[in-house]
This record gives sequence, C-alpha cells and structure tokens, in this order.
Amino acid sequence: MSLKLTILGCHSATPRVNAHPTSQFLEIKNHNFLIDCGEGTQIQLRKFGIKFSKIKHIFISHLHGDHLFGLVGLISTFRLLNRETELHVYGPKGIKEIITLQLKLSNSWTHYPLLFHELTSTDSELIFEDATVEVHTIPLDHRIYTNGFLFREKLGDRRLNVQAIQQCEEIEICDYQNLKNGTILKNNTLTLDPVPSKSYAFCSDTSYFPEIVPIIKKVNCLYHEATFLKDKENLAYTTKHSTAQQAASIAKQAGVNQLIIGHYSGRYKSIEAFKDEAQEIFEQTFLASEGKTFEIK
Amino acid sequence: MSLKLTILGCHSATPRVNAHPTSQFLEIKNHNFLIDCGEGTQIQLRKFGIKFSKIKHIFISHLHGDHLFGLVGLISTFRLLNRETELHVYGPKGIKEIITLQLKLSNSWTHYPLLFHELTSTDSELIFEDATVEVHTIPLDHRIYTNGFLFREKLGDRRLNVQAIQQCEEIEICDYQNLKNGTILKNNTLTLDPVPSKSYAFCSDTSYFPEIVPIIKKVNCLYHEATFLKDKENLAYTTKHSTAQQAASIAKQAGVNQLIIGHYSGRYKSIEAFKDEAQEIFEQTFLASEGKTFEIK
Repeated sequence: MSLKLTILGCHSATPRVNAHPTSQFLEIKNHNFLIDCGEGTQIQLRKFGIKFSKIKHIFISHLHGDHLFGLVGLISTFRLLNRETELHVYGPKGIKEIITLQLKLSNSWTHYPLLFHELTSTDSELIFEDATVEVHTIPLDHRIYTNGFLFREKLGDRRLNVQAIQQCEEIEICDYQNLKNGTILKNNTLTLDPVPSKSYAFCSDTSYFPEIVPIIKKVNCLYHEATFLKDKENLAYTTKHSTAQQAASIAKQAGVNQLIIGHYSGRYKSIEAFKDEAQEIFEQTFLASEGKTFEIK
Repeated sequence: MSLKLTILGCHSATPRVNAHPTSQFLEIKNHNFLIDCGEGTQIQLRKFGIKFSKIKHIFISHLHGDHLFGLVGLISTFRLLNRETELHVYGPKGIKEIITLQLKLSNSWTHYPLLFHELTSTDSELIFEDATVEVHTIPLDHRIYTNGFLFREKLGDRRLNVQAIQQCEEIEICDYQNLKNGTILKNNTLTLDPVPSKSYAFCSDTSYFPEIVPIIKKVNCLYHEATFLKDKENLAYTTKHSTAQQAASIAKQAGVNQLIIGHYSGRYKSIEAFKDEAQEIFEQTFLASEGKTFEIK
C-alpha cells in the first residue's frame, strides 16, 4: 500500500483565488489525516473530491490563522452532514477554547464526539499510535508554539522466504503466520525482512532549525516550509520562517528521499525560483501546488 | 450617486466550489459596507476586485458560521496589509470575544483600531449615523439572536428651481446654498424637493416574520433570504428560515421596489425555481448570484 499526500493549500498568509493557505491530506495505511486547516480548506477538499467522512484525525501545527481558520467551518460542516463518528483534533493548547466558544455562541454543538488533544510539550512526543501507524510531534521554532508532525508506518511482519521454505519439509502452511511474526522460529533463513515502513514528516512553520534533523532522519518524504528565497534570508530570520535553501539543507542533513517545499510568500510572482534555489543543495526537491499528489510506493 | 450592491456569496450552510455562504458589499453615498462574512469572503472580495482598504464597517447579522467564519481571517489579513484606519464591527454580543480570543492565542493583535459594537436589543435601533447615511437594525426571527440591517441615505438639500429663480431678480448666486437648505426662504416656488433618498434592507436569516414590514416599508431594494421552495415549507418553519414565496410576500406587504433572494439550500440543483415561485407573488424578484451587482440609480 502506498503513502499518498494531497496538497490542498500551500501558500503563506492569506487566502487568495487559487492560492490557499496550508492544508494537506495524508493517506497512510488505512488512515486519512488532515494536516493544518487554513481558511477555505473545506472548499479545497470538495474541489479535489476528498470525502469528508474519511477524516477522523486533524493535526494543527500552530494557531496562526493561515493554518487554523478553516477548522471551525469544517467541524461545523461535519455536523450539518450528520456525522456520527469521532473526530480527533491535535493542536496547541487553546485550540479547544477557540472552537468550543464559537460552537457555544452559535448554539451549534456537534452531535458527534469531538475530542481535543492539546499539545504543550517542547519535546518530541508520541501523540497517536495504533497497530499500523504512529504520529510524533516535531517541535519547531516559530513565533508562537508550533509543532510539525512525523507520520510513520509501523514495521509489518517478516515476509516468508518461499524458496527456502519449499526446501524445508517440516514447515507446514499452518506455521506460516507464526514464522512471519517470529513466534516459532527466529531466523533469517526462512523469512525475509519486513517491507520497509514508509514515513512522512511535515514541518511548517519554522525558522532554519537543525535540531529537528535527528527526528526526521531518513524519512521517505519531508515537507518543509520555504516562505522566502535567499534574497529575503534576513526577513526569514526575523519572522522565523525558512528560505528554500534552508529547507533543502535540512533535507540534506536528514538524508531524506525527497523534499517538498511550500508556504510561498505572496510577494513572489512565480514559484519556480524556489525549486531552482533548493535544488542547488538538494536535487530531489519538488514544489507543492494545489491539488498535486505525491505517492510513495 | 447610485447605490450599488455586490453579491459575494449567497448560498446557505457550507462553502463549496462556486457556492459561497452569505456576504455582500454595499456602496451607498461615500460609504462601503460589508454585510456578513462567511468563510472565504476575502477570496471573493479579491475575485471581484474589491479593494480591502475600502471597508471600514462590517455588519454581522448573527453568529452562525455561514455568516461569520470569514471575519477573523479578513481582520487578520487587514493586519498583514498594514492597515492603519479604524475598522468597526457591528454584531451580536459575543463577537468580540470570538475574534479577540483568536487574535490573542495567535499573538496577532491588529495594529489598527478594531472597534466592536455589540448588539443585544430586540427592538430596531439606530447603530450608525453620519451626515449622509444611517443604519438601523431589523430584528429577525431565527434560531439564535439575529438582526437584518436597513441602510438609508439621508435626504439631501432641496434643489434649486432654476427657471423660477431666473424670474426672481432679488435672488443672487450667493443665496443659492441658503435657498437649498431652506435657511433664508422656505417655499416651494424657488426650490424643488430633494432627490429622493435610496435605501436597502438586508434580511437574513429569518423565518417568515411580518413584524419587519413596518421597518422596511417602501425601501428601494430588499434582500430577503429564501432558503427553501414551497415543497419544504415545513422545514423552513422548523429551522426558522423562509421560502421564496414567503420572501416575496414580505416584499409585497412592504411595497418595496425590488426584491433580491438568496441563501439557497444546497439541496436544490437549480435556483431558477426560486425565482419562478417568488414571482407568482412579487414580480420584481431577482436572484442573487456570486459576483452579480444590483444598482439603484
């Protein structure tokens, strides 16, 4: 099964026609995660044909509007669509108060269970885990408390080495599952390593912050914000954002397979230069654009 | 000078591609008023080329999301655009808490004066007045506290009856202004009635509520919500919305010049039937649609 990322919005600051703020939809194993939720995210979900009912977990990096202001609308729409299943929202402390105040004053409480998981730690922590996937925070360095998120498949069972098993008469079919999970025989003769697990790291918004490198080491895919080109490195520093080259440097240090950049400042007419500058440092750089999907097979 | 209304969004409930929730931009005398602000309003303003800096007064009818959720984003965008001029927001009690909580938690206070005028009265009241325009609330009947708004030009000076003045030798040019405002001579011989003042009434959301008729009597233009067709009159009753025919009935009772309807439920594939049903009762009915402008000259 592949890991698939759909970019819903990838521009900084304020929504404009065809330039929506940050939001991404991640399909990993049997999970569908929404990451950040700028104003207009629900329109983008509809535009790209993503079923609302798929979303059960929403991760919000920080409380700046371009990552948050679409959340209350989406939660309200779920209610209008008669959602019954739980919705889990992970985000900085305060997010619950923001949402519940608006639901209270509009007399529009959800009929479905709405569960907030408020984050306060500045250390990386495990915030979601089940049999197939785990999610860790990636503490970032921005003007307000901000986390990125690391999504990682768990390692599956070992795979049968069919050729070896066929030459080993005492192994029967009923032993196969025990072989795969190693409960009857731990060896590298009859089984092969599991399919490598896939991972995705989302890092927005942040200054150039190499402290994250150990957390995102060797992920298959890294999204890292790149608000500015190198002409505005000073502005990146003062606003605690990154340049395309700083994003590429992080990707290189972490030895990731591919880098996606986005969160482009509206001051640039074209985004091609972001790719050009990043690729000087890290060749496998791709530009986020609305509706674009990235698959890791 | 004409009164000009631009429809930014005219659909109910949740924003969809090409179906935005309620927002309108009204130009009256030298004023530019934003009325309601559903999610995505700032994108619609950009789409239809309306300069953000023009907006100095925003009127919010009620705290349901499809009339409100775009406000905090617009206020934040004004900040990013380095706005310096005052912004006045009129809306139900609670609106200030909703906005300021989000500005506080995102550490994004506005640098421009942001002034809230919270409404609690269930009687019609004058909430804005200057030399040329006045705005009154229109208390409506909805599931939560809701006001419509009546925008009315003030009567200008009397007009000179040039033909009569030319035959009256004792009147000199320096007397003209005093003639027009009636300070030296009150008569109907040398002056004519002022240009009739224009008025616009915005009524959304509300059940069928004839109590508003005296307030909106003979306005030039009435916007009245029409969420349902007559097939769903029961649903209109229970959700405290109106049908197209109920909107038309209000327009007829109030003797307005023209009626605009909108706030269409998403259940209807086509909105033409709204017009057909309304026109059975009130011929001068027009359909709101995104980007459409209505001018009263």
